[in-house]
Amino acid sequence: MSAYDEFARRMARINDLCCVLNLLTWDAGTQMPPGGAETRGQQAATISAIAFETFTDPKTLELIRAAEAEVAGEDPDSYRRRAVEQARQAYEITRRVPAEVVSQLKELRPVTESVWARARAGENFAAFAPYLERMVELNRRVADAMGYDEHPYDALLSRYEPGLTVSQLQVLFAELRAGLDPILARAKAAPSPRIDFLTERDYPEEAQRAFALEMVQKFGYDLNRGRLDPTVHPFEISFTRQDVRITTRYQRRWMPAAVFGAFHESGHALYEQGADPALTRSALTTDLLDFYAVAGVSYGLHESQSRLWENLVGRSRMFWENHYGRLREYFPEQLADVELEEFYRAINRVEPSFIRVEADEVTYNYHIMLRVEVEKRLIEGSLKVQDLPEFWREQMQSLLGITPPNDRLGPLQDIHWASGTIGSFPNYTLGNVMSAQFFEAACRQVPEMEEALARADYRPLLAWLTENIYRHARAFLPDELLRRSTGSPLNTGPYLRYLNRKYGELFPG
Amino acid sequence: MSAYDEFARRMARINDLCCVLNLLTWDAGTQMPPGGAETRGQQAATISAIAFETFTDPKTLELIRAAEAEVAGEDPDSYRRRAVEQARQAYEITRRVPAEVVSQLKELRPVTESVWARARAGENFAAFAPYLERMVELNRRVADAMGYDEHPYDALLSRYEPGLTVSQLQVLFAELRAGLDPILARAKAAPSPRIDFLTERDYPEEAQRAFALEMVQKFGYDLNRGRLDPTVHPFEISFTRQDVRITTRYQRRWMPAAVFGAFHESGHALYEQGADPALTRSALTTDLLDFYAVAGVSYGLHESQSRLWENLVGRSRMFWENHYGRLREYFPEQLADVELEEFYRAINRVEPSFIRVEADEVTYNYHIMLRVEVEKRLIEGSLKVQDLPEFWREQMQSLLGITPPNDRLGPLQDIHWASGTIGSFPNYTLGNVMSAQFFEAACRQVPEMEEALARADYRPLLAWLTENIYRHARAFLPDELLRRSTGSPLNTGPYLRYLNRKYGELFPG
Repeated sequence: MSAYDEFARRMARINDLCCVLNLLTWDAGTQMPPGGAETRGQQAATISAIAFETFTDPKTLELIRAAEAEVAGEDPDSYRRRAVEQARQAYEITRRVPAEVVSQLKELRPVTESVWARARAGENFAAFAPYLERMVELNRRVADAMGYDEHPYDALLSRYEPGLTVSQLQVLFAELRAGLDPILARAKAAPSPRIDFLTERDYPEEAQRAFALEMVQKFGYDLNRGRLDPTVHPFEISFTRQDVRITTRYQRRWMPAAVFGAFHESGHALYEQGADPALTRSALTTDLLDFYAVAGVSYGLHESQSRLWENLVGRSRMFWENHYGRLREYFPEQLADVELEEFYRAINRVEPSFIRVEADEVTYNYHIMLRVEVEKRLIEGSLKVQDLPEFWREQMQSLLGITPPNDRLGPLQDIHWASGTIGSFPNYTLGNVMSAQFFEAACRQVPEMEEALARADYRPLLAWLTENIYRHARAFLPDELLRRSTGSPLNTGPYLRYLNRKYGELFPG
Repeated sequence: MSAYDEFARRMARINDLCCVLNLLTWDAGTQMPPGGAETRGQQAATISAIAFETFTDPKTLELIRAAEAEVAGEDPDSYRRRAVEQARQAYEITRRVPAEVVSQLKELRPVTESVWARARAGENFAAFAPYLERMVELNRRVADAMGYDEHPYDALLSRYEPGLTVSQLQVLFAELRAGLDPILARAKAAPSPRIDFLTERDYPEEAQRAFALEMVQKFGYDLNRGRLDPTVHPFEISFTRQDVRITTRYQRRWMPAAVFGAFHESGHALYEQGADPALTRSALTTDLLDFYAVAGVSYGLHESQSRLWENLVGRSRMFWENHYGRLREYFPEQLADVELEEFYRAINRVEPSFIRVEADEVTYNYHIMLRVEVEKRLIEGSLKVQDLPEFWREQMQSLLGITPPNDRLGPLQDIHWASGTIGSFPNYTLGNVMSAQFFEAACRQVPEMEEALARADYRPLLAWLTENIYRHARAFLPDELLRRSTGSPLNTGPYLRYLNRKYGELFPG
């Protein structure tokens, strides 16, 4: 067996362990009876510990070194070289971060999540504050251990989006605000569309599920290698490209939750299902820092695909021109008196609101800007946890012109910080920006694309995305993928052009 | 940390791995999309290899030795001593059986199972024969490596039922035949009951499921720590006592399949859910030879509990006197013209047939006697694989008076041998015999038992079984459990008394 093959064999074992961890998570979120929670946690901790021990074993470093020697002369873009390089980088970072900090973060997580859940229910930020302080402190220690050039937050950002920095984000957010503010102003001035047919009529779950499944299969989601289940907080998760599952949430009086939830998760799933089969069970389908089986290269890039299929495809006028008739067949009574135009306006309503996950395409980004500012300040120490609620209210007022009446609708709404995750929020907005950049490039490069989309044929789009993004899994960094496939680094142009075109038509101002 | 605690910590890790393996199996049998099969197999192989490596690591022997020293002076019946003893025994057996034989058995298994499935479909025993020969040869090597006093088959028997021997089985089967033959003769002479209302009417799945779930919850199956799913081949499986799942199979034109299938699996599940919480994640809830998470101490004892709840409770006249009315509420049209007595006779029909898993309570044991005779002869070399079909036909004729028209209805019907399992068949009949022995003791020892059963209160029965069997998990051997709880070793008296009473009334002869 060659040195590379031995290295690959160890990576395959680690990927198997990560896939198993993902299955434990999926099962816990969709199937497990409540009584199983405690021992499930112990099982996950054991598998996670074994993955960590296997990866940090000195033998792994030997295997990496031997593989490095073997692939040294090969094409720097080859999957083999990339696999070895990424394993080396992850090994170095894992070695740098003290095991004690990692285990404290892990132990604190379930405790903090349950304190947070109670604090949120009771609108009691003070109860959560000391735990959040501890999470911030541990994250700061991670940042210091990882090292950074300019800002400690940069180290944390790079865990979720390799290469991303605070200074990059500042430019990005400034451009976005300049472009978004006028759209938002026009939206606020426009009359509200009718949504009574969504909020006041009953949409049975089974029909919601059937319609959503029919649509995501049109996108290309392969049920031979996937399935759709109900859950509380929708997610996509994979155990190799051969088994990529999505979940959604059903609300009988807000059908868009399930339908757009399924579109969103199917975008994540198409990315995972589209990985090159040769990369199955490899370092390039494994997040070796978090021991998570995933083909997507970063949080932002992954999000770009969920947003692309959910919003650029699934909330487009073209999409509903093709499929509104079908939706009406599933809900003939509920939609009997609703014109296509009314439906399209209802699902594209723009309105400032308190909850990020319920925000529309335009206001969503403001929620992210706020959170990123909070994270940056907490990590650099210029904002104290105790002052967070006040800061939040001020920022919401200044960004969106509304002030949350309590902390449940404010800084207690997201689970991320309770889970010890700081630095992942920017990726939701990065996803928005990248989704339009990819979509514009695909339409430009494939002449028949728009015509295909106009007749509800999503194959050319999926083919372009698979060829340029999905098949490579984690082999190329986000910036490399953007440059190779769109010809430019990350830029806000396509996204703002997309929003201006779409909302310019809806709110001519 | 004490030596015992360190030992227990390692056992907890191994149990976690076994629970995870069980979850991979459950998911593959109930949820996994077809495309996931290959990588799922790789994931299971990895977890299984890690469990094996962890258990056979020389460090485990050190931990066992240190724990042995620590518990040496304790009560020989204490859980701590039993846990250490069993780990030691499993360690010795695992060390004795050559790793090469184990891995050949493992590798051959999926291949042979798929050859078997095709051979069965094509009624082509010759295609399966060379693979079966290899499985017999490998099992013979396992037997020789394990060692035995009288017969190589004894070594294999003891893997599934500790202490069971060929000579014991010969006595047992002779007693059973002497008792069963007259019952069977009377059954054959009796007129057939009507079953048209089961085979010719349509029973919707949802109602079958609802009725079955309602009943197994009456038995005491706890849905807070369990769930019921549809599958092709019903099974029960657990990931600690906190999460014990059952499955059943729905046939719209044979409702008893799902209902009695669920009763059967719920019996297994009650055993698992009833283990002492202190034994969670311990050697006493782990089969360390097969790396299987299970609280039941042996295949036979486990089967005694599924049979007890399925047959002694679930097929009893008393049960249906209590619940037939409820069944009719679920199926008012299908059962409108069916009297309780007719229903009771239909579900207790006795009739020789070719397929073991479809056999009734009386003829079932003949199917086992045949298989045990085959296994014994194959292992000792007195029957060649090529002569098996002929031997099968002769035996079926001599035991039940019928001859299968093809090998699909003959030696190709069961998956066991294709899976490399030789020696597990006796346990189905042992389960029958033990079920009646336990049930009779419970009724004798608890004066209010029959009265409770008569008013459909299953709590005293579950309490007796939990106290005497379930809570101990694998701490006591089957023979110990029988003697401690019933006052005698395994004996056929209660089972034959039970059958004579029940079928004496149905077929007075």
